[in-house]
Amino acid sequence: MRKFEVSSLKFDDKGLIPAIAQDADSGEVLMMAWMNAEAVEKTLETGQVTYWSRSRQSFWVKGLTSGHTQELVNFRFDCDRDCLLVLVNQVGAACHTNRRSCFYTDVKDGAEHEIMSPMT
Amino acid sequence: MRKFEVSSLKFDDKGLIPAIAQDADSGEVLMMAWMNAEAVEKTLETGQVTYWSRSRQSFWVKGLTSGHTQELVNFRFDCDRDCLLVLVNQVGAACHTNRRSCFYTDVKDGAEHEIMSPMT
Repeated sequence: MRKFEVSSLKFDDKGLIPAIAQDADSGEVLMMAWMNAEAVEKTLETGQVTYWSRSRQSFWVKGLTSGHTQELVNFRFDCDRDCLLVLVNQVGAACHTNRRSCFYTDVKDGAEHEIMSPMT
Repeated sequence: MRKFEVSSLKFDDKGLIPAIAQDADSGEVLMMAWMNAEAVEKTLETGQVTYWSRSRQSFWVKGLTSGHTQELVNFRFDCDRDCLLVLVNQVGAACHTNRRSCFYTDVKDGAEHEIMSPMT
């Protein structure tokens, strides 16, 4: 057993690390967003997944305004320590388009297809 | 139905886009790596998932040397068009450590735990 140090993760030249959110029950990949070191600490401390918004340059406690929170179930990192996987209990839609997942478009035979409708 | 144009994806300032590989059957998240526009095209054309190796600065046809190939089952992108999700048939281990997934370490109570052994 080794103590986990946030500083042992590899952040990019902007101080960020990609974080994949996966539904802890269904296994569905919900979204990918970014964390900085402090967002990682907040996520682990509060149990509420917290990203760093690159557009707003501020912390983004997922669901704080929408109510579509992500409760942390399990926090993982990869072999290179440069990508995170958070297993979550997702309330409602993970996507701002009100779809369960942000990955609602696929490509087949050179064309885009919407494979998921907004939640009702 | 809209024709898919690789140029409609949003690549970062290095010309790269993150690609999450997920096991098409089990839903397990296997790894995250990067593609450039040409790697996206190769992946769609050949049906063999092809990344761009940032360390080697060359194309990386997954499994070409190891045999641990990723056959493309479904290609998706997210609402912002700046992240890819590839559903794959993974042969053997996705991780260079010979584990099925690169995400084999989790964090609980401030300590790291290995949750997956190398494949035999």
